[in-house]
Amino acid sequence: MSARPSPKKRREFIHFSRITTRWKDNDAYRHINNVTYYSFFDTALNEFLIRGGLNIEHSPVIGLIAHSQCNYFSSLAFPDSIDVGLKANRLGNSSVTYALGIFREGDDRAAAQGEMVHVYVDRKTGQPVSIPQEMRMHLAKVKSEPRDDDV
Amino acid sequence: MSARPSPKKRREFIHFSRITTRWKDNDAYRHINNVTYYSFFDTALNEFLIRGGLNIEHSPVIGLIAHSQCNYFSSLAFPDSIDVGLKANRLGNSSVTYALGIFREGDDRAAAQGEMVHVYVDRKTGQPVSIPQEMRMHLAKVKSEPRDDDV
Amino acid sequence: MSARPSPKKRREFIHFSRITTRWKDNDAYRHINNVTYYSFFDTALNEFLIRGGLNIEHSPVIGLIAHSQCNYFSSLAFPDSIDVGLKANRLGNSSVTYALGIFREGDDRAAAQGEMVHVYVDRKTGQPVSIPQEMRMHLAKVKSEPRDDDV
Amino acid sequence: MSARPSPKKRREFIHFSRITTRWKDNDAYRHINNVTYYSFFDTALNEFLIRGGLNIEHSPVIGLIAHSQCNYFSSLAFPDSIDVGLKANRLGNSSVTYALGIFREGDDRAAAQGEMVHVYVDRKTGQPVSIPQEMRMHLAKVKSEPRDDDV
Repeated sequence: MSARPSPKKRREFIHFSRITTRWKDNDAYRHINNVTYYSFFDTALNEFLIRGGLNIEHSPVIGLIAHSQCNYFSSLAFPDSIDVGLKANRLGNSSVTYALGIFREGDDRAAAQGEMVHVYVDRKTGQPVSIPQEMRMHLAKVKSEPRDDDV
Repeated sequence: MSARPSPKKRREFIHFSRITTRWKDNDAYRHINNVTYYSFFDTALNEFLIRGGLNIEHSPVIGLIAHSQCNYFSSLAFPDSIDVGLKANRLGNSSVTYALGIFREGDDRAAAQGEMVHVYVDRKTGQPVSIPQEMRMHLAKVKSEPRDDDV
Repeated sequence: MSARPSPKKRREFIHFSRITTRWKDNDAYRHINNVTYYSFFDTALNEFLIRGGLNIEHSPVIGLIAHSQCNYFSSLAFPDSIDVGLKANRLGNSSVTYALGIFREGDDRAAAQGEMVHVYVDRKTGQPVSIPQEMRMHLAKVKSEPRDDDV
Repeated sequence: MSARPSPKKRREFIHFSRITTRWKDNDAYRHINNVTYYSFFDTALNEFLIRGGLNIEHSPVIGLIAHSQCNYFSSLAFPDSIDVGLKANRLGNSSVTYALGIFREGDDRAAAQGEMVHVYVDRKTGQPVSIPQEMRMHLAKVKSEPRDDDV
């Protein structure tokens, strides 16, 4: 395990989604279960893609998650509201690496932060394909500057 | 099965909670899975109780769900936002019957509506107890008028 | 609310599915959250239908949940294993009413029991349709005898 | 991102838990959602710890997840059953790094594999503490040999 990263600030992300927590997010230790953070990531990411035109039902190309990770810094609990920060650290030919941060409403330091890697594949064959041009233009809106790619 | 009820309107509820949907709420049929509606109910109810002073960790008296039900009228899908309407149709000595309605943002007819029955029990013995006076006063804020108790 | 029903026995159901519980099923009160029981119902029901030939992706006719309910008798907690009992109390032209019971491994009295009503609709129009003959024959395997239709 | 790892085999893990999938695990793309794999990890890990004597309610020391990650190789779908393989790659003074693998029933190559890092803290202060001796002895049962620590 490499050196533990520090919590990011809000200004290090480009797009934000507000998410309300749920009673069932709290586990037996009465804080939000570690699994649920990935649902926050997944939700922010898909909301961004759907609002950018992704057609879940008919798109011939879909994004599959190849890798994900998360570092947890401080706990959250229902009924907290959270903001998920998003940016794309790497925009390749057929894959995108997103950085995501979870912020409690009003906090500027991430409670958790992580990464998700999407690989675009042909819906029928499952083979990697180039990211369609319209999607690429949408993704460019959240592309971070070079250099800024640590998680 | 008795006659199928009609969708309620927003004005038939007293308290509302805004809930954001999640990517994972959609099931393989691409609408919000029937199970998740109960998480919306559960979340709205616990948010109301916690904001009214319920101490999840230390309260000597807790509410257990004895019964729940839901009628589904029209489908919802991520990324819809929803409002959950809440009122208490019956406020007994140790139990409360809540009516709940699920409204898509901007819609006035419920997409689904249902009922949850809480029984208050001693945390240690599990035996039913009278609802504490402070909680009863909080619950009275969402008590519906008599007569208004169909689901 | 009508009189509270009594817990059913295993012999009152026809088909059983074994389900393993998960850490996240336990909520802040450290027992399985009330919402999760509906996921047990939903899982047992869909497993029965899929093993009977339901094609989730291509079937022109799909079942939508129109109503569900559950009575809770005793709590369960991870890492309990459970068995879900299933039968069809009513098999109509376009709808099926299922009775379901949740049993802790080794227990003969239901910890919870409930009902789900499926309405079969045309996948494209959403209009109710007759249950296809092949599905009807599969459903007949779990049809209870007449008279046995209380929940 | 470093080079993508290869799927592990069952023999690379020490402890296994069988988990049944659920209808709601499938997302709108009709395979098990990436988030759910972490619930499989979390469940296998907590089952191992609880069966080894962890007292969720009263233990003065609890394990918090500091980091998690997962690599996804092939998709799974309800109603698959899965086995989760577990071992501890690193057993430190106050932290444990677990390697986990997700195997479809009957498959010898992991469909996904990942890592979770537990930090043991004092339940009240949240400060890291040494892993209690009894827990350490339980963890030693799944400790991998040296050298075997890639994910």
